[in-house]
Amino acid sequence: MGSYNEMWQKLNMDLQKHDILCAALPDSFGEIYMTQKNRPDNMNYFNYALAEVHGARIEEIQKSKKNGKKVVGTFCVFVPDEVILAADAVGVGLCSGSQFWVEDGEKVLPRNICPLVKAFMGAKVSRTCPYFQSTDMIVGETTCDAKKKAYEILEEYMPVHVMELPQMKREKDFQEWQDEIKLFIKKIEEFTGNKITVEKLKNSIDLVNKKRRALKRLYDLRKHTPSPISGLDALLVSQVAFVDDPIRFTEKTEELCDELDERIKTMKPNGRKRIMITGTPMSVPNWKIHHIIEGLNAEIVVEETCTGTRYFEKEVFDEGDTIDDLVRNIAERYMNINCACFTPNNDRIDDIIKYAEEYNADGVIYCNLSFCHTYAIEYGKLEKALKENNIPLINIETDYSEEDVGQIRTRVEAFLEMI
Amino acid sequence: MGSYNEMWQKLNMDLQKHDILCAALPDSFGEIYMTQKNRPDNMNYFNYALAEVHGARIEEIQKSKKNGKKVVGTFCVFVPDEVILAADAVGVGLCSGSQFWVEDGEKVLPRNICPLVKAFMGAKVSRTCPYFQSTDMIVGETTCDAKKKAYEILEEYMPVHVMELPQMKREKDFQEWQDEIKLFIKKIEEFTGNKITVEKLKNSIDLVNKKRRALKRLYDLRKHTPSPISGLDALLVSQVAFVDDPIRFTEKTEELCDELDERIKTMKPNGRKRIMITGTPMSVPNWKIHHIIEGLNAEIVVEETCTGTRYFEKEVFDEGDTIDDLVRNIAERYMNINCACFTPNNDRIDDIIKYAEEYNADGVIYCNLSFCHTYAIEYGKLEKALKENNIPLINIETDYSEEDVGQIRTRVEAFLEMI
Repeated sequence: MGSYNEMWQKLNMDLQKHDILCAALPDSFGEIYMTQKNRPDNMNYFNYALAEVHGARIEEIQKSKKNGKKVVGTFCVFVPDEVILAADAVGVGLCSGSQFWVEDGEKVLPRNICPLVKAFMGAKVSRTCPYFQSTDMIVGETTCDAKKKAYEILEEYMPVHVMELPQMKREKDFQEWQDEIKLFIKKIEEFTGNKITVEKLKNSIDLVNKKRRALKRLYDLRKHTPSPISGLDALLVSQVAFVDDPIRFTEKTEELCDELDERIKTMKPNGRKRIMITGTPMSVPNWKIHHIIEGLNAEIVVEETCTGTRYFEKEVFDEGDTIDDLVRNIAERYMNINCACFTPNNDRIDDIIKYAEEYNADGVIYCNLSFCHTYAIEYGKLEKALKENNIPLINIETDYSEEDVGQIRTRVEAFLEMI
Repeated sequence: MGSYNEMWQKLNMDLQKHDILCAALPDSFGEIYMTQKNRPDNMNYFNYALAEVHGARIEEIQKSKKNGKKVVGTFCVFVPDEVILAADAVGVGLCSGSQFWVEDGEKVLPRNICPLVKAFMGAKVSRTCPYFQSTDMIVGETTCDAKKKAYEILEEYMPVHVMELPQMKREKDFQEWQDEIKLFIKKIEEFTGNKITVEKLKNSIDLVNKKRRALKRLYDLRKHTPSPISGLDALLVSQVAFVDDPIRFTEKTEELCDELDERIKTMKPNGRKRIMITGTPMSVPNWKIHHIIEGLNAEIVVEETCTGTRYFEKEVFDEGDTIDDLVRNIAERYMNINCACFTPNNDRIDDIIKYAEEYNADGVIYCNLSFCHTYAIEYGKLEKALKENNIPLINIETDYSEEDVGQIRTRVEAFLEMI
């Protein structure tokens, strides 16, 4: 990624520090991804997208900016992409998946909070994320204590708009969430100068639904035994989804699925244990748990996470004659994401039991980022429910460091032998 | 407290385990409180209230229950006492301040969450808190991730109603909080069978305001140099406020203030550093930080906490002709509590700067219960603001264990020398 120095300089990045990150990523990607055997040919696009994640994609985004587009950065699947796209803005999921940023995050945040939050703050503070540097406005949400309060600090660095996500799912909360989406529409219209019309919003609903459908198709293919794609590769596809152009991403994912459609016709059982991951998001380049699990005799067949099913399940109903109609449809889809931030959140347990059957999972691995209270506390209820349903489960709480890799491998190994 | 065994047995308590707690409390109270010199005579009532906290006061509550009253347990200053009292129910703040309960809490909750949350859960799970055992309904709130999710587990043990506290303070949120109070009124009317009338609600507003006024008077007296009461004693008064009969508590606090009014006439400067505490609540019997600080050459003159100023500052406006009017008044008072659960929460910083002047504080000690993300993150902003105002500040993050006492003492000692 050597030829982008001029662009990065213009983005006011810390080039020296960023070089360290750029030097480490290809090694770790090579070791984790390129050593996999028999990968689908169409993963080449996603390899390329990852390799150029701070390069070609940023160049594209800069071109869009020159053409008058605003860039809106997000951290959470509750911020409706449909609204961002309908305002002719570019939406990107911001950097938050590397230990590289944690140290700088800890300069302005306490140590004992979630590594994802520390990482995004560090990425901004250290000026080593070109997405942050390209972003005109951050849209946050009140999904957890750590993010909610971290946005206050982020606001000292750049414009932030926070959406108040209700904490329950009563009719009253659903109404409040609609109001919140309307406030977001108003805010982004002012910010971009572009009016969100019914037609534009319908188009963006259609566009995002198509992207969801492509991911859903990919996940449906993973239901085959054996899965025609590794969990690592599927995770990479999901991670690219958060930063890539949505139309191209959808095309490339459909092409990958076409190939996998052919693959499953000739695949023979491989005896690998089929694993479901559930828990907190794994943002790029966080491949830690997948790397450990698939390095053993197992394949990950589904992720019930925000970088998995919660990102694409349930489409937005696309019929309606007014903005109000469409906002109601959007609110309905997003409020039905079963995140641990809600109380209660029993539907998540139902989802996990349903997926275990649909994906024919042999066991579930609960992956929780350290200090994420909502998911950590929700573990207890899930443990009971899965026990009743005879679905094996273990709990892994970890951050982005490499210190506990050996310990986690030992635990996963024991789990795989047991199930 | 030996003569209450029969009552405790009827409350289905674990007597054996509870005996261990009962045996430890007088020792620690004796060591921390009774060794203080020159205490006000009227502290005797609060000594008695503490000694009988699991005895005589529970007996009273049981009598009320026999007379048909319901007992409503709470954990947070956002649950409006006015509504509980207007429904002829008894309101009590539940056990959450002792390390004794943490181990049992960790049986159903993760370890790395706030000790207060683990303690209240442990108090219920272990059946060693007679308040929990007397409580007919818990009223929770969505003030933090840990409590919000812990209530889901508590609900497996007893009826729980959760109030959704908005996360911001816009006009929209203020409306939502009014709706939430109305839902609580409806819930408690159904639960108690008692209709909340305008008259009853006005009476309870009046009653709670009087209690606030008594505490405010006590705190105003602490503005005198030297303070006529120790921080430890003031903390005990606040802690008793959460469990005592509100009318008697108000009388006893006013009597104490009458005595302190006399005291200040003859008190001479003692050269002690005047300290403000700010941060998370200190529920009974959590006297750890006060004990450390006042064991050195310092006096605590104000607590900007939920067991301090946030509990009594700002009265509920008592005029109005309808329930709606009064609910608006109640909502207004409670939404103006400056808790770190709100984003943003800059008014808290203003409060702290104002108190530093009013109470003539030499320094501020930020006391944060371990793993409380909202207060931990808010520290950074406060640090900047106090620096600009030349007010010395240190940060202490701690739980209920005794392990870090030596270390904290050393840090506080250094801080006191510096200011």
